[in-house]
Amino acid sequence: MTETLPKRIVIVGLGLMGGSLARALARLPARADRPDVVACEDSDEAVAAALRAGVVSARVASVEQADAEMAVLALPVHGIIETLQRDAAALRTVPVVTDVCSVKGAVEDAARAVGLEDRFVGSHPLCGDHRSGFAASRAGLYDGATVYVTPGAASGPAAAVRALWRAAGALPRDITAAGHDELLARTSHLPQTAASAIAATLDRLGARAADMGPGGADTTRVAASSPELWTDVLLHNRAALLPALEELEAVLRETREALEAGDADRLSGVLQRARDWRSTRS
Amino acid sequence: MTETLPKRIVIVGLGLMGGSLARALARLPARADRPDVVACEDSDEAVAAALRAGVVSARVASVEQADAEMAVLALPVHGIIETLQRDAAALRTVPVVTDVCSVKGAVEDAARAVGLEDRFVGSHPLCGDHRSGFAASRAGLYDGATVYVTPGAASGPAAAVRALWRAAGALPRDITAAGHDELLARTSHLPQTAASAIAATLDRLGARAADMGPGGADTTRVAASSPELWTDVLLHNRAALLPALEELEAVLRETREALEAGDADRLSGVLQRARDWRSTRS
Repeated sequence: MTETLPKRIVIVGLGLMGGSLARALARLPARADRPDVVACEDSDEAVAAALRAGVVSARVASVEQADAEMAVLALPVHGIIETLQRDAAALRTVPVVTDVCSVKGAVEDAARAVGLEDRFVGSHPLCGDHRSGFAASRAGLYDGATVYVTPGAASGPAAAVRALWRAAGALPRDITAAGHDELLARTSHLPQTAASAIAATLDRLGARAADMGPGGADTTRVAASSPELWTDVLLHNRAALLPALEELEAVLRETREALEAGDADRLSGVLQRARDWRSTRS
Repeated sequence: MTETLPKRIVIVGLGLMGGSLARALARLPARADRPDVVACEDSDEAVAAALRAGVVSARVASVEQADAEMAVLALPVHGIIETLQRDAAALRTVPVVTDVCSVKGAVEDAARAVGLEDRFVGSHPLCGDHRSGFAASRAGLYDGATVYVTPGAASGPAAAVRALWRAAGALPRDITAAGHDELLARTSHLPQTAASAIAATLDRLGARAADMGPGGADTTRVAASSPELWTDVLLHNRAALLPALEELEAVLRETREALEAGDADRLSGVLQRARDWRSTRS
């Protein structure tokens, strides 16, 4: 599998995701498979830290300058879409282009609109942190994590992208962009939106976060994530997210009505269904 | 403080909470403060395990038989209320009666209705586990945990109850029953109900629990808790919980409408408020 790993990779964006990718690849044995990794990043501080850590070999001012076999756009959704549009000509000189963001349809559409569909393969690593920036990056972030890969029309480049994620310690898994977005709307974007709604509700009600027990702390933990990043993600996946949110509103209304009516059977029916579902995972 | 710890305690119910209390007290140095702990419990298996572990000295068939200075009702809400009603005469022979359940108004009302208000002091340890039963009990369950104590009219017994929880490693904190129930409706019962609603929604939408990332897993974790136990708690605290649930429905509706309208400012306003609130706790 390692034969398709590119020799030279440019990572655009040295935040949590890009920085952790550089760190993960730097763990590879030098004599064999370690690609040369260069960074395209505005922050002098992040670049200096990455050079100091020895996880990138150089800073480039543009993707074109990198002369790389693969570009990894490690930016928020809107940053990826803007880069695809603004740097389309430069990206057409790179054989393989991928990204790391958590919506795939909007990004694949943007790549197609600028004629990059023959080399663009979407990626979404199913890991992260509520912290962000290079300072939060770590070599093991991707270890054992599923990375969804959306090959689209680019089957050749897809092999290189899978090799990249395997080299970083992750488990690549092919999916269509539409299938990905519907899946993530349910398994990630709905819980994220709901956790924020619960936290915002508790703030309105005057509760203190410090008074929550371990259960309440778990339920609202992801509400501490970046509002900018998530506004971006949720808006770019709203077609898939809206029906899921409406379903949650319906279930909450039914639960509240059962409680109002003092109907133990209906209330416990919801809790039982939830328990059975959640218990299939530890 | 230890001077008020009773010499002989009967624990009614050797589940997770009662079993862990027996284990915690058994850690005390024998020569000095360790009270004699006896158990009133239907399950032969739990009693045998507790005797084998040396954390209770005997099994009693009834509270009266225990001849104890304190009774701890370590049962679900309805079990506590039924015990107060059924065994009121026996409990009137015990100087101090407390409990461990997570609603306090309904329990205090039940104690008052049978004339136990001079000795009943409610307790609610802010800890637990999604597992239950003596097999899940552990000596350290209460270590460092807040235990809400509702002295009501019983100020003398309250000192003994505080001493009990300190001896078990916990941090007692006085509150009124009504104040407790309003606080818990927000910080515990609302997140619990919402987590179950999210899990039930994902089940309806055909999502698989195994496909969630770490964020979705955190948000729905407490949905794996016992439906019976929580139906009981939520129904006994519905007066305080209903307005909180209605507020959550309103916030979710606003969030969904912002998303529908593609209104980044309104959407990010909710997420920002949630982040600011949640970030006051690690």
